[in-house]
Amino acid sequence: MKNRLTIGIKTSIVESMKIQIWSDIACPFCFIGTGQLNKALSAFPYKNQVEVIHRSFQLNPDSPRTATHSVSEELAKKYNVPLEQAQAMNAQVAERAAEEGLTMNMNTVLPVNTFDGHRLIHLAAEHGKQAEAVERLFAAYFTNGENVADLDTLVKIGQEIGLDETLIRETLVSDAYTAAVREDINEARILGIQGVPFFVIDNKYGISGAQGTQVFSDTLQKVWLENNPLTIVGDSTGAVCDDAGCVIPQAHE
Amino acid sequence: MKNRLTIGIKTSIVESMKIQIWSDIACPFCFIGTGQLNKALSAFPYKNQVEVIHRSFQLNPDSPRTATHSVSEELAKKYNVPLEQAQAMNAQVAERAAEEGLTMNMNTVLPVNTFDGHRLIHLAAEHGKQAEAVERLFAAYFTNGENVADLDTLVKIGQEIGLDETLIRETLVSDAYTAAVREDINEARILGIQGVPFFVIDNKYGISGAQGTQVFSDTLQKVWLENNPLTIVGDSTGAVCDDAGCVIPQAHE
Repeated sequence: MKNRLTIGIKTSIVESMKIQIWSDIACPFCFIGTGQLNKALSAFPYKNQVEVIHRSFQLNPDSPRTATHSVSEELAKKYNVPLEQAQAMNAQVAERAAEEGLTMNMNTVLPVNTFDGHRLIHLAAEHGKQAEAVERLFAAYFTNGENVADLDTLVKIGQEIGLDETLIRETLVSDAYTAAVREDINEARILGIQGVPFFVIDNKYGISGAQGTQVFSDTLQKVWLENNPLTIVGDSTGAVCDDAGCVIPQAHE
Repeated sequence: MKNRLTIGIKTSIVESMKIQIWSDIACPFCFIGTGQLNKALSAFPYKNQVEVIHRSFQLNPDSPRTATHSVSEELAKKYNVPLEQAQAMNAQVAERAAEEGLTMNMNTVLPVNTFDGHRLIHLAAEHGKQAEAVERLFAAYFTNGENVADLDTLVKIGQEIGLDETLIRETLVSDAYTAAVREDINEARILGIQGVPFFVIDNKYGISGAQGTQVFSDTLQKVWLENNPLTIVGDSTGAVCDDAGCVIPQAHE
């Protein structure tokens, strides 16, 4: 038998991109903004080189485990406006969501504490299911009127995305990921993030809020080209065809 | 039959090179530029470590499936010049092609939609026949005056490069590879490519247009040495012979 000479081939490397999203489950514009980013990503040719990481944030850390008011009642109290006006404001937000293909049933939303929901997202992340957990929790909260602070509800949601029932339950009754959620919130504070969603790209660019799919698309392209610039070789007057036709470059004089 | 364990000895690791070419079948400078790259590659000692990938681009996405004008009539209309002048321009391009050993019969070219041609190239790529498909389609379009939007013509071309007739036909009557062609076009847009041919080497260097075999040769060498630099061992004053003669290095004092 002959020894074989093998040439090892390494294929070319591209610089990946990292997007961190600080958001809260109980945050309508986080639901909308995450949807916009996902739309931009699905059309982005280098999506496989983009890593998306969800970071925890709590808009209302003092919310109870059981809802005592509707979101419109909460809003009316917060802004000191009549209930009807608060309902109209929420209807506007739901309309905005609908434009993005997302369903918000504001009348059935249960505004509860999201801390354990965030812990579930961290558990899911360890099993490669972070995006699924986020998506499912947004739907639970905004679309389905589920109580995302309730242990059994969270266990059910975790199971739906493929996590083990016992694992979820044992995790949530312990204080696992409590530190991780607090670290996310602390890091947001350090970065000066005061509102969510807040998107951090490559620890370099920040996008505050749900600014529309186009802003995300443009930013993906911009950062990609910055990370993977093309150096143009030769001159720029080569014989090319474009939509104006084919041009033969003239000899330089 | 006995299973044999072959021990592969890895003697050296080389960094391969990846060349992506965005081009359109109906693009004369793509035909010429691809020919120039192929010439440069055939003389390149590490050609087996160079992966060439053809990416789709469409100069005239609205072209019909059946030609309604000659390419010279199209050109005359586009630039608003007399037909004779357009014919002369096309003759110049054909001349340039002839210098590269390529035959363009501009009077017989049928300017039709190239989308299905690109889908055939994608199908061929899955069977390791991408380069053959590209070459054959350029010849069909520019040399042989074939209608590259016609199903039977594409089936024949596919068969000529070794694909199965039923497979080609079923692929082309379905919408297979439609998304793949659109993704290529979208990626060109993201990279800022406005004209073709456009060559991307290792996601790092760009060559716009058919700049001649020498530019491709130089770039192959440059990128190869960047990927596989030689570190000089010992000192640089060893006894060497060069075209100035042989010099015995003097002892350092």
